[in-house]
Amino acid sequence: MDELIGALRAALPAEAVLTDPDVTASYAHDMASFCEAGRPAVVVLPRTVEHVQHIMRTATAHRVPVVPQGARTGLSGAANASDDCIVLSLVKMDRILEIDPVERIAVVEPGVVNAVLSRAVAEQGLYYPPDPSSWEQCTIGGNIGTASGGLCCVKYGVTAEYVLGLDVVLADGRLLTTGRRTAKGVAGYDLTRLFVGSEGSLGVVVKAVLALKPAPPQQLVLAAEFPSTAAACEAVREIMGRGHAPSLLELMDRTSLQAVNAMAHMGLPESTAALLLAAFDTPDPAPDLAAVAELCTAAGATEVVPADSPAESELLLQARRLTLPALEALKAATMIDDVCVPRSRLAAMLDGTAAIAEKYGLTIGVCAHVGDGNTHPVVCFDPADEDEARRARESFDEIMALGLSLGGTITGEHGVGVLKREWLARELGPVAMEVQRGIKAVLDPLGILNPGKVL
Amino acid sequence: MDELIGALRAALPAEAVLTDPDVTASYAHDMASFCEAGRPAVVVLPRTVEHVQHIMRTATAHRVPVVPQGARTGLSGAANASDDCIVLSLVKMDRILEIDPVERIAVVEPGVVNAVLSRAVAEQGLYYPPDPSSWEQCTIGGNIGTASGGLCCVKYGVTAEYVLGLDVVLADGRLLTTGRRTAKGVAGYDLTRLFVGSEGSLGVVVKAVLALKPAPPQQLVLAAEFPSTAAACEAVREIMGRGHAPSLLELMDRTSLQAVNAMAHMGLPESTAALLLAAFDTPDPAPDLAAVAELCTAAGATEVVPADSPAESELLLQARRLTLPALEALKAATMIDDVCVPRSRLAAMLDGTAAIAEKYGLTIGVCAHVGDGNTHPVVCFDPADEDEARRARESFDEIMALGLSLGGTITGEHGVGVLKREWLARELGPVAMEVQRGIKAVLDPLGILNPGKVL
Ligand SMILES: Cc1cc2nc3c(=O)[nH]c(=O)nc-3n(C[C@H](O)[C@H](O)[C@H](O)COP(=O)(O)OP(=O)(O)OC[C@H]3O[C@@H](n4cnc5c(N)ncnc54)[C@H](O)[C@@H]3O)c2cc1C
Ligand SMILES: Cc1cc2nc3c(=O)[nH]c(=O)nc-3n(C[C@H](O)[C@H](O)[C@H](O)COP(=O)(O)OP(=O)(O)OC[C@H]3O[C@@H](n4cnc5c(N)ncnc54)[C@H](O)[C@@H]3O)c2cc1C
Repeated sequence: MDELIGALRAALPAEAVLTDPDVTASYAHDMASFCEAGRPAVVVLPRTVEHVQHIMRTATAHRVPVVPQGARTGLSGAANASDDCIVLSLVKMDRILEIDPVERIAVVEPGVVNAVLSRAVAEQGLYYPPDPSSWEQCTIGGNIGTASGGLCCVKYGVTAEYVLGLDVVLADGRLLTTGRRTAKGVAGYDLTRLFVGSEGSLGVVVKAVLALKPAPPQQLVLAAEFPSTAAACEAVREIMGRGHAPSLLELMDRTSLQAVNAMAHMGLPESTAALLLAAFDTPDPAPDLAAVAELCTAAGATEVVPADSPAESELLLQARRLTLPALEALKAATMIDDVCVPRSRLAAMLDGTAAIAEKYGLTIGVCAHVGDGNTHPVVCFDPADEDEARRARESFDEIMALGLSLGGTITGEHGVGVLKREWLARELGPVAMEVQRGIKAVLDPLGILNPGKVL
Repeated sequence: MDELIGALRAALPAEAVLTDPDVTASYAHDMASFCEAGRPAVVVLPRTVEHVQHIMRTATAHRVPVVPQGARTGLSGAANASDDCIVLSLVKMDRILEIDPVERIAVVEPGVVNAVLSRAVAEQGLYYPPDPSSWEQCTIGGNIGTASGGLCCVKYGVTAEYVLGLDVVLADGRLLTTGRRTAKGVAGYDLTRLFVGSEGSLGVVVKAVLALKPAPPQQLVLAAEFPSTAAACEAVREIMGRGHAPSLLELMDRTSLQAVNAMAHMGLPESTAALLLAAFDTPDPAPDLAAVAELCTAAGATEVVPADSPAESELLLQARRLTLPALEALKAATMIDDVCVPRSRLAAMLDGTAAIAEKYGLTIGVCAHVGDGNTHPVVCFDPADEDEARRARESFDEIMALGLSLGGTITGEHGVGVLKREWLARELGPVAMEVQRGIKAVLDPLGILNPGKVL
């Protein structure tokens, strides 16, 4: 251990190596706090690519596991420490290196916070779409690690679609450059996408070339109240089936609405079974909003209220973004599912989730990126109550089984981490698992990169 | 050889195994006809996934190379036979299995022709964007093999962005399913993208889940004439730098215009140095077209003509799509470069290309997806003239060197094939090459899948 820390210090500034156990313990886990987490041997905070290369070379020489971390807002334990590992936090590598409006790219270090980048590019009339609700905290490196989504995905897609190229420090310290800076390019196998969503288990991202879009007009939001989640899902089917392109299409169930009101007194309608939020960011959103309002009414909406202004729209989005923290405040702990199903199976997914909550006698609030079929059932429980904790885990798993049976995936955007590891094999099957393990072995033959995650 | 053919016939219908040397020779190469190509031992035309699995199992047992083929419209020799190989043509697996307007996906076999799919989804109000100019011939499997682009990419991106999931028969005959049918999903490493653009060297695609978009309004095209390619490139800089989102932004140089007129008598302006085509497919394209017209004029355009109708627009696109065949008709052979550079380096790229043509005393016509910085210098030569053929190859290579020196890539959309193999290493460097080779070895340990391509 002392040897390891000495070796790390040999080429890192003193303040970049933390060993105080109280301090290192505070880096042990992400926001999925109930997931198992080990005790790190040391936390390192590199500022340069060379620092990261030194860390990985040292880890390889000492055969010590390395856990890359961004802001630790992850929801599946993917950034959790393993025992005696090196926690490699990228938060000090937080420079925006370049914003190019003609090429429509930004070049950034991994520790840049999502909202910081979004605001910086907005100043130049540009738009970096991926917007996880944690955007004020989470880092681009973490977004790339988890391939994360957000509210805009139904129109603009997820992080993966905005990563053009990467600089990655490999397990043995070599520096790999993938992809490109140009708008197009197909030279060799697509290694960039292999790293996106790999949860720090294939390499450490130290630089990213990100694609930007021209900034769209500010979106206008419409809110529709439904007597059942199934009716809201029927509206989603119609909206998407008829070719509308909303910039956002979100659902909050009654539990979520009540939780957000309890936390932030936002005056959301609590008697409604499901609130659907739809937005358009086209130059003239009025015709689309009117058409969507009509489809909502036809599907049974009891109330359809278009926001009067961008400010009012922003308030509705804030309410939606608060849902996870608000549901988390209901009980001592939560487990957040992330099942994504075909849009036409959404009603079955939400009705099934309600039945699971009933069966296990638990509160399970649901918010969902319904436009993409991506649901977040949030299982609320008290870990001190052993029986409730067991029921929580069982219902969490049953929700994933339901998602798979409906032709969905166990994770739409939060990743596998430690939370869904055993489920990954159920979704992928033996051939895919074997190929995935083969690829892991090529990039990390000693198995030191974030062991116990993903595979 | 007889043993191999007997083994293939054991589980394939008689008409699916072609051995007549005159017939098999006709499958020897793609449209890059000057690239080296071997003599296939046999051509197989499977109709089912099981057929493909049988073929790959047999190939593995006999250690025989397999070359997957679509329509053989490729431009880099990626589908060229190697000596004594099995040519595995997927053209008989050409069923559209499903089109789902709510989920906005199509599920297809690999042999479906691009235009056939485009028309089928259009009937349901949907849009499959990737549109290589060869779309009436090329197959989805080939599009996936090369990650191909087209005219729409500047707004809609390339094939890679529309492939959600794949069924792939591996080298040893196992069936791998990657990706998903849902709009989002991050379960495990992104194997789908690894296969996109892998030129048949990692596995045989037997089914694809493709993303669709709602059909946009028909686009309106504007044509602008410039006194120099540099002036046209300056207009491109301005158009893209000011946040416009054209559905197409293409350039044809004088040689291209003359060639198309010679072939099809389209009455394109031959005295102009560069014709720029810009289009918008928004509900109201007028303001954008007007703004772009103004930017073109400011950059020096001598004539700016908006098309009056979708029909006139379609005519201009036809002219653009004819460019490669028209340039090919100028001389006995062509080598088509595919360099993609940052948009702000386009003028340097095109001026440099003209200087290379001058230096080698060759005709090099240029058409380009300028909106993406993707240029196609077409080197025209007579292979029977040894000196000219040598100069052609040298100029072809010098164009790639120029592209790399400008921060670009050797291939924006046509792939590496046999044509650019030695250049791939120059672009990627040793670390990336080693990782790519490691991945190839995981998926094709015996090296029987399209050997001599890509890496
Ligand atoms: C309130 C709240 C709302 C959220 N909303 C959303 C949402 O809408 N959509 C969504 O997708 N997620 C959401 N999340 C989850 C989380 O914010 C995202 O997964 C985010 O991308 C994590 O970023 P991070 O910087 O916190 O990464 P971390 O949690 O620190 O790490 C995430 C993973 O990436 C790896 N990693 C981090 N940096 C690097 C690097 N430089 N190189 C290699 N690997 C690296 C880690 O090892 C880990 O596996 C939410 C979380 C919270 C708490
Ligand atoms: C006139 C003309 C215009 C063109 N315009 C464009 C353009 O605008 N943009 C562009 O990108 N390209 C263009 N091309 C190039 C070519 O059409 C594309 O590369 C196309 O995608 C090739 O499709 P194909 O079916 O002909 O494939 P092929 O040429 O038969 O094969 C291409 C590659 O894919 C592999 N492959 C084919 N099927 C499978 C499968 N099922 N599984 C695994 N691997 C497979 C092959 O092994 C080969 O490596 C053009 C070509 C011509 C002749």
